[in-house]
Amino acid sequence: MLQSHLFNKIDKNTSQPKNEGVNEVEGVSHYLLTRAGFVDQLMAGVYTFLPLGYRVLKNIEKIIRKNMEEAGGQEVLMPVLQPKENWQKTGRWNNLEVLFKLRGGGDKEYALGPTHEEVVSPLAKKFIFSYRDLPLALFQIQTKFRDELRVKSGILRTREFLMKDMYSFHATQEDLDKYYDKMIRVYLNIFKQLGIGNRVYLTLASGGTFSRYSHEFQMISKIGEDTIYICDKCKTAINKEIKAENPVCQVCSSNSFKEEKAIEVGNIFKLGTKYSLPFDLKFKDKEGQEKPVIMGCYGIGLSRVMGAIVETNYDDKGIIWPKNIAPFLVHLIDIGNNKKIKNRATKIYQNLQKEGISVLYDDREDKSAGEKFAEADLIGIPFRVVVSEKTLLKNSVEIKERNKKSVKIVKIKGLSKIFK
Amino acid sequence: MLQSHLFNKIDKNTSQPKNEGVNEVEGVSHYLLTRAGFVDQLMAGVYTFLPLGYRVLKNIEKIIRKNMEEAGGQEVLMPVLQPKENWQKTGRWNNLEVLFKLRGGGDKEYALGPTHEEVVSPLAKKFIFSYRDLPLALFQIQTKFRDELRVKSGILRTREFLMKDMYSFHATQEDLDKYYDKMIRVYLNIFKQLGIGNRVYLTLASGGTFSRYSHEFQMISKIGEDTIYICDKCKTAINKEIKAENPVCQVCSSNSFKEEKAIEVGNIFKLGTKYSLPFDLKFKDKEGQEKPVIMGCYGIGLSRVMGAIVETNYDDKGIIWPKNIAPFLVHLIDIGNNKKIKNRATKIYQNLQKEGISVLYDDREDKSAGEKFAEADLIGIPFRVVVSEKTLLKNSVEIKERNKKSVKIVKIKGLSKIFK
Repeated sequence: MLQSHLFNKIDKNTSQPKNEGVNEVEGVSHYLLTRAGFVDQLMAGVYTFLPLGYRVLKNIEKIIRKNMEEAGGQEVLMPVLQPKENWQKTGRWNNLEVLFKLRGGGDKEYALGPTHEEVVSPLAKKFIFSYRDLPLALFQIQTKFRDELRVKSGILRTREFLMKDMYSFHATQEDLDKYYDKMIRVYLNIFKQLGIGNRVYLTLASGGTFSRYSHEFQMISKIGEDTIYICDKCKTAINKEIKAENPVCQVCSSNSFKEEKAIEVGNIFKLGTKYSLPFDLKFKDKEGQEKPVIMGCYGIGLSRVMGAIVETNYDDKGIIWPKNIAPFLVHLIDIGNNKKIKNRATKIYQNLQKEGISVLYDDREDKSAGEKFAEADLIGIPFRVVVSEKTLLKNSVEIKERNKKSVKIVKIKGLSKIFK
Repeated sequence: MLQSHLFNKIDKNTSQPKNEGVNEVEGVSHYLLTRAGFVDQLMAGVYTFLPLGYRVLKNIEKIIRKNMEEAGGQEVLMPVLQPKENWQKTGRWNNLEVLFKLRGGGDKEYALGPTHEEVVSPLAKKFIFSYRDLPLALFQIQTKFRDELRVKSGILRTREFLMKDMYSFHATQEDLDKYYDKMIRVYLNIFKQLGIGNRVYLTLASGGTFSRYSHEFQMISKIGEDTIYICDKCKTAINKEIKAENPVCQVCSSNSFKEEKAIEVGNIFKLGTKYSLPFDLKFKDKEGQEKPVIMGCYGIGLSRVMGAIVETNYDDKGIIWPKNIAPFLVHLIDIGNNKKIKNRATKIYQNLQKEGISVLYDDREDKSAGEKFAEADLIGIPFRVVVSEKTLLKNSVEIKERNKKSVKIVKIKGLSKIFK
């Protein structure tokens, strides 16, 4: 992509908060993602993803989708508009505070889906009859809505957000338990692939109405809304909300913990029969006996994960995207507006693209080298490649990795190998 | 994908409408897509896309996205929740009948986006300052909402639907005109790639409040809600709603037309300054003079296109998917439950997938050959590949194309070439 055409403008009205305290409450992700033109706030808690931001979101989506498919998940797309009747059946029409409700023509009332148990359970009922139809896992990557009383600045807690939710269906509690344990490993692997694996902790949390406990995936961050206690020995954590009930580590029985602030980036629940009972979702077992289906659910907020990645990958100059999340892999910059430099840079741009490498080419003629470098650091693409009079003398370019200090001079011939 | 694991069940409760008249009103797409397990109706006008249906939708999305990118469009994701104030600015809060409205916490009122002029115009204002920032084209593929008084059965007219909308921004009317003409060609090309090119006609239609005319892309179909007049000579059409004002063809001045029923699968508008004026979206021209930005918009309903494709691609046995839209390219079926057949079929399944060919493998042991064939015809995958005792004697498989009568016996060695 040519940067001269990119729908992106460094927002000079968004100045870095001077007060260190502000960052600690609001997070730097709001400031960095807005200023660098990844997202644009339409109103409190509602954002547009701009071209750079949408590219990041799709990279996150790709990683999550691949892992869900490998875990046997089948992708569907369920509706945002959901009938009131389904939410009354589970008692959540009146009890879920964050539920957006609306009334359409013919006085029909709808919920705007904040989660999809009320859709997936009656849907599964149409397809599940026998133990032979189980286990089953359905997932979707879809926009959800929650009328949060307080939204944070930035994309960490919003009223409209992109989320992956998976629902699993089982014949026995043992089968759910096995799948649930598998999903813990899948989730830890996803966060590793998203570049935040070293900061995300499996955390025991309260379980809501059905099961005693659930598990959260908490990323340590000074702006986190949650407090967790990480076991010194086995590195699993306990959420503060249930720490009083659980004075020792559930995994290794150690009682030595480190307290940390954390952002919840995923959570998984054993739903059991909480939703299969109201929707009469049952199956016939091998003996021909009817039994309720046992369910699990597994969520990750994609837009929140994007914010969380930024919260842990930045320096005083801007964002530092992990390679597989970055909007582009290479930020090509030309310095000097003469024709020879432009021609060589354009050639490099085309060749790298032919090799399947994503490149943002800063071809702008009205920006100084200093401005280009500052914006490149702010945007945070992993490799900065500079073409100038000086580098061309050696048939070379200058390469700097965003997360390193040193620069390298590399021959143009065979350049693409560096990025593979 | 193994069919024994696929979240799909031929819906035996959905029987084919006996009365030919029903199909003519409702369309066969509703019946076929529901019965074959591509979609599931949650309530009137609101559907879930099941795994097979979602695969089709993503194939359509891929084709549209590629064409938008080639036309210089940059992809964004704008919100569903939109502030009342923006809709009041354009007068559409009270005047757009199909607008879903809702009230959230703090008495904040929102519109559920039926279209995005009220978001994209103030967004563009933050990025467009000078003639150098123009032209610009932004697109998104996003779920939209319209409180339609009457919805059709099936996915042709729903209250929640997936749509691609593109917005273009120009310095001059001439530049908009040029881009608009280019988009006509892009759209005709998209419908060709979607396999309905031979039935889609560029159609002059009324233009709403700003420009006198707009253009629709109408696909002829006996269940169409629109009536169009196709010029015998140049094959462009006129919508009945403006035929009285336009007695002769606008392109070639012929007055010989053929009347047809048609489904609108796309539409494009010259918005001019209709939205740039209320949002004060302007730019400085070369002389430094401030002028309002000139806009165009370009829509295609993805879920509607999916229904329209089915309306023109079926026979009495089921759907006949065009190759680049089909949920899978190959439907592999084994006949006979002995180990040798299963092993060979599994090997073929794995090899084809290695070659990058998408395969649905009907490995079910509780279905007869007749049932498997009938379901394969209903689902409509382009190539049916059968492995049986008989074909294996010749180290072969039997191949039948869904849209042809004849079968071929083809050696297993080098099989994948057939599908490339």
